[in-house]
Amino acid sequence: MVSFLADHFLLSSQTAISLYDKAAKDLPIFDFHCHLDPKEIWENKPYKNITQLWLGGNHYKWRLMRMHGMDEERITGSASDWEKFSAWAETVPHLIGNPLYHWSHMELKMYFDIDKPLSPATAEEIWKECNEKLQQPGCYPRDFIQKSKVMFVGTTDDPVSDLRYHQLLAEDETFQTTVVPTFRPDGALFIERPAFSTWITKLSDVSAIKITSFTDFLAGLRQRINFFHEQGGRASDHDVQKMVYLETTKEEAEAIFTKRMNDEALTEQDILRYRSFLLKELGKMYAEKEWVMQLHIGAMRNNNTPMKEKIGPDAGFDSPGDGDIAEGLSRFLDALETEESLPRTVLFNLNPKDNPVLAGMTGNFSEAGVPGKIQFGSAWWFNDHIDGMEQQMKTLANVGMLSHFIGMLTDSRSFISYVRHDYFRRIVCSILGEWVEQGKAVNDLDFLSQMVRNIGYENAKRFFLDRKGGNKNGHSAGTSQGHSNTTNDESETAVR
Amino acid sequence: MVSFLADHFLLSSQTAISLYDKAAKDLPIFDFHCHLDPKEIWENKPYKNITQLWLGGNHYKWRLMRMHGMDEERITGSASDWEKFSAWAETVPHLIGNPLYHWSHMELKMYFDIDKPLSPATAEEIWKECNEKLQQPGCYPRDFIQKSKVMFVGTTDDPVSDLRYHQLLAEDETFQTTVVPTFRPDGALFIERPAFSTWITKLSDVSAIKITSFTDFLAGLRQRINFFHEQGGRASDHDVQKMVYLETTKEEAEAIFTKRMNDEALTEQDILRYRSFLLKELGKMYAEKEWVMQLHIGAMRNNNTPMKEKIGPDAGFDSPGDGDIAEGLSRFLDALETEESLPRTVLFNLNPKDNPVLAGMTGNFSEAGVPGKIQFGSAWWFNDHIDGMEQQMKTLANVGMLSHFIGMLTDSRSFISYVRHDYFRRIVCSILGEWVEQGKAVNDLDFLSQMVRNIGYENAKRFFLDRKGGNKNGHSAGTSQGHSNTTNDESETAVR
Amino acid sequence: MVSFLADHFLLSSQTAISLYDKAAKDLPIFDFHCHLDPKEIWENKPYKNITQLWLGGNHYKWRLMRMHGMDEERITGSASDWEKFSAWAETVPHLIGNPLYHWSHMELKMYFDIDKPLSPATAEEIWKECNEKLQQPGCYPRDFIQKSKVMFVGTTDDPVSDLRYHQLLAEDETFQTTVVPTFRPDGALFIERPAFSTWITKLSDVSAIKITSFTDFLAGLRQRINFFHEQGGRASDHDVQKMVYLETTKEEAEAIFTKRMNDEALTEQDILRYRSFLLKELGKMYAEKEWVMQLHIGAMRNNNTPMKEKIGPDAGFDSPGDGDIAEGLSRFLDALETEESLPRTVLFNLNPKDNPVLAGMTGNFSEAGVPGKIQFGSAWWFNDHIDGMEQQMKTLANVGMLSHFIGMLTDSRSFISYVRHDYFRRIVCSILGEWVEQGKAVNDLDFLSQMVRNIGYENAKRFFLDRKGGNKNGHSAGTSQGHSNTTNDESETAVR
Repeated sequence: MVSFLADHFLLSSQTAISLYDKAAKDLPIFDFHCHLDPKEIWENKPYKNITQLWLGGNHYKWRLMRMHGMDEERITGSASDWEKFSAWAETVPHLIGNPLYHWSHMELKMYFDIDKPLSPATAEEIWKECNEKLQQPGCYPRDFIQKSKVMFVGTTDDPVSDLRYHQLLAEDETFQTTVVPTFRPDGALFIERPAFSTWITKLSDVSAIKITSFTDFLAGLRQRINFFHEQGGRASDHDVQKMVYLETTKEEAEAIFTKRMNDEALTEQDILRYRSFLLKELGKMYAEKEWVMQLHIGAMRNNNTPMKEKIGPDAGFDSPGDGDIAEGLSRFLDALETEESLPRTVLFNLNPKDNPVLAGMTGNFSEAGVPGKIQFGSAWWFNDHIDGMEQQMKTLANVGMLSHFIGMLTDSRSFISYVRHDYFRRIVCSILGEWVEQGKAVNDLDFLSQMVRNIGYENAKRFFLDRKGGNKNGHSAGTSQGHSNTTNDESETAVR
Repeated sequence: MVSFLADHFLLSSQTAISLYDKAAKDLPIFDFHCHLDPKEIWENKPYKNITQLWLGGNHYKWRLMRMHGMDEERITGSASDWEKFSAWAETVPHLIGNPLYHWSHMELKMYFDIDKPLSPATAEEIWKECNEKLQQPGCYPRDFIQKSKVMFVGTTDDPVSDLRYHQLLAEDETFQTTVVPTFRPDGALFIERPAFSTWITKLSDVSAIKITSFTDFLAGLRQRINFFHEQGGRASDHDVQKMVYLETTKEEAEAIFTKRMNDEALTEQDILRYRSFLLKELGKMYAEKEWVMQLHIGAMRNNNTPMKEKIGPDAGFDSPGDGDIAEGLSRFLDALETEESLPRTVLFNLNPKDNPVLAGMTGNFSEAGVPGKIQFGSAWWFNDHIDGMEQQMKTLANVGMLSHFIGMLTDSRSFISYVRHDYFRRIVCSILGEWVEQGKAVNDLDFLSQMVRNIGYENAKRFFLDRKGGNKNGHSAGTSQGHSNTTNDESETAVR
Repeated sequence: MVSFLADHFLLSSQTAISLYDKAAKDLPIFDFHCHLDPKEIWENKPYKNITQLWLGGNHYKWRLMRMHGMDEERITGSASDWEKFSAWAETVPHLIGNPLYHWSHMELKMYFDIDKPLSPATAEEIWKECNEKLQQPGCYPRDFIQKSKVMFVGTTDDPVSDLRYHQLLAEDETFQTTVVPTFRPDGALFIERPAFSTWITKLSDVSAIKITSFTDFLAGLRQRINFFHEQGGRASDHDVQKMVYLETTKEEAEAIFTKRMNDEALTEQDILRYRSFLLKELGKMYAEKEWVMQLHIGAMRNNNTPMKEKIGPDAGFDSPGDGDIAEGLSRFLDALETEESLPRTVLFNLNPKDNPVLAGMTGNFSEAGVPGKIQFGSAWWFNDHIDGMEQQMKTLANVGMLSHFIGMLTDSRSFISYVRHDYFRRIVCSILGEWVEQGKAVNDLDFLSQMVRNIGYENAKRFFLDRKGGNKNGHSAGTSQGHSNTTNDESETAVR
């Protein structure tokens, strides 16, 4: 029997243990997609207490407290921070089997050196212990990042953002982690939302391009992409709730845009056509810049109208949708490919029924010298647990290539979510170890260790940062020697 | 090697064995959804032979005999009961891997003390042994119920039923098991069926409300709900073949109803709108009564037209459909939530692709003081096997909360299907045991034992019987102390 | 730890090992669906080198090389055969977890007696060793077939084929393997393709029926079915990309056919109606001949337009679609059943989300004396890996009957793909062994061995070759005694 969260947690074989020790344990983190607020990184203010760190804005936890029957008062209401923390402590023992059960305890252990299980019985003690530590140096936002060996943080940003805090962070020589923005143009794509026209005004202001036409609008977006690029941005991200693609001309999209600007009603078809066209146009701009395009497919958001009205959107009332995605996705990517403008792409799905569709899609489009050009992204949100990660990686391996997988990201608003990378890496080691010990893979620890380092760090770094012109991590087209290792000198011989 | 159906069957670890022995083995049964005939319980007649008990009306078994190539004569035809039994005995060895293989042998073992495998070689011997026992006291319908420690039986009833046998059973002080009706208004919802108008006439008769308008019709339904409530009914059940929800006004629904009463043709849209409106109206009535609403989603029924014409509906020709359900379900539940009328709800799916959708949906709607208000129901019908139950529970745990799961039901027409509860409980213990032994859960046997008891019995009892006004099992809002244990005194300390 | 591809590879228990040794190891192969070219079998020419054998036309491997970032030049381009082989050797180590990793090494071991892993380091050595062996007797196409104990090969053929090489092979007494054609009428069904009219002309020519009407066209198809039947054909196969069925009259279909022959544009509805009608008509013809109808459902083909234009269709740019199939499939099969013309049918799915739908469908239609009349076909294409096969068989077992499963096929263009049968049989033994050792199945090695032989060989042989009139393998209606064993004399007692 393995003790709860013991050292060998999730490492199901001796080979897994060896791989973890050799290749995963000390690996830095390349966290290419998260929702950290750059302002908070910049300001680096201490937390008043563990509730502020753990439960502020954390709709994952809110949702589970509600499912436990907790009163909203103790979740997002006016209850004291202690009452909120104790509400969470009452919930946690009931989360057996849920990743939050593991994450929470891993976070207490890693960042607060606490390894007793959180429950009503231990709540007060843990509350005090955490709060004391939070007042001391070593528990400030930047400390969490550095202690976690995070080399790269990709935040998620509105194109109309001035990226002020990204600039300040880039100029701050005392802070070594690279923090770059990710271009998330929801404001441009969701033409049906009431806020659309306000957003256009903001875009006009921030881009200094007076937007009176669709052409102006596209110019404004391009200006922002250039601006993000200057700030180190190398990626975009998109909330694709329904993966529909309708071939649409610029004239058609323009007419729809004009209707919208004139406050005329749009049909469902208008909305889909506009979005199809604009997403393709953006894709072309990303390809020009050699950016990565991320698509998060299939969320069904804000399902509870009264709660949305009461406490706002994105507050823990989302769940997986189940619409078809294969044809829309194929046609969208093919439209870009046909215009020789398909950027490196990461496909994330919220419904695991789509795993085989995405794993299969990774093989339909490729580029010489770019291993894994189309990525099946790691298990997203409701899939982000042991079973979900195993399924995602095994489907990728069975249908495509696990070796070039860019691996994990936190997708988090919290500074202590980095334990998820450790969680993920243990699972990677466990899967590889299982294959070796069952005679399904050659027992070559050097090669496998490099594979762990690649999936855990190197692949993502190359995928997001390598440029065609060539740089120190550049790919040699048609060979795998581009898989140089920047973390371990053994790798040059290990990779064949 | 574990012997076939040995004591430790399905208990894959020492912790699983301990949990089963401590918490599951002697637990009573709360069978909240089945298709038992209350008349048969009341009459309590002995069975002529094992064919009458096992194969009469059992379309699960019929279907498998057909797949084995058996002639219909020996399934539902005029062959003798012995010939039918021997047809089943020929089929059983070929069912390795199917739950009927386990259930059948578990039933022979538990109720007839027979532990030799059924096959052509043993058929005659087992036929004789079972038939002898069936003539003796201890093998009458009520005996099977009592021997299985069934405390509660929720049958499935037509709203136009007079519930005569439920009344007789309630009055019979010699029979301790509570048998209550469940309101299943297929007759009201399937407006497109030829029998609709006849059903309205029956409703009119039984409710003593002359139905000449849609308002009368709703009044008639409400009268039946009140009547079911008086007979102890606390739940409804619905066959939702396609989970579509179209926002529809009362006037629109009324117009469709009127068309139908005038024998005018309905469009597909009419049917969907009518059903959307009526299901919401019913949901509001359930909420008023604090009833549970059960939705069985996604069956594709009577796929074989010639056999339907030959031997009738529901005869073993059903299979899982695959339509989208996420949006329709979300909108339907949200419409009720918006009217502050969402009752406690149990969502069952026939296609396991919908597991993540339902597990996710459980977190979109909640109520202070009601842990697990929206339930992802246990693996239904074609999912009701070891793998299906594991998947259902692991998906629920990963995405939501396993701890508040209301657990198993037989869904059966047979008096000896209660072994399915034991089967289920072994799997619960096995899952929890696995988590503990792999270091994924705190090794706290008291807490885990209570969790087994809750999932096996207590949660369902609370979910179906607790009332807001408060009763001895009442929830204390915002705490988990409502999880009192009525089966084991240790629980008060075990639950935190 | 099990060594890579060791003798006990995939045999996860002692029971699995015993079953494999006793029943699977020496079993012949009935390869009822493949894409071998009968001309190549007839000509029996030696291969110039391993690239010709391994990489010519193998779009599975091309696809993976592209995903590895290889230049198309070294895949389908003008690079030398050595350069192509070395490109594959560079890719292989990165395929850990992919079935191609296992198949490739199993093929090297079985046909070339090489058991060192393929990698850049071993590429040259393996290249030389294979090429030497390929020049020697024992490595010609027919040698691979005979060495693999293949008793039956079902190729995939255009109805307009003259089947010349099938005739020559049938007449060649030096070659014992039965090679028969399979009727694949894509040309007739895909009315929307530009090549349709040319195909009609070919059909006219080869059938010697002047096709000027829809009636002529159906007569032409019937003539080809008769011709295929004379050449030993007993099966058809269909590429069903979207499983839609619209009830359509002959007059409607005829009108659409006439529009097409007059080069008038067809609507999407026209195409679906025409295809629905024709597939049903073909189904009736198959039923008359007692043929097997195979449906391969849900491929999304040629997703990359530029590559299709560059190197043609079917070149490694396909992936799973995700459309609904349950209703269309049910209605289609029911339409045939209603006309008493449903042939034995094998349903294959490309998206594993459809596993439960197909496993369920197998129970909706049956025929006395034909165990497993509707088959859920083995894990197809992107599902053809260990996890996919386990899922397919476990879903079949849970929902239907594994015992009558007709098992594996290569679906391959290569003469050395027969290792896939061994791979599959190991998994069958492993599943059965697991059930036995966990107490989920009676430990009756004789029965289980026969089950392995049935799934591995006998069931397919009976399914494709047995005739109602009765023959030496004829079914005895309503009994399982039809399960005679032609490979092992023990079976008569083993099957009950």
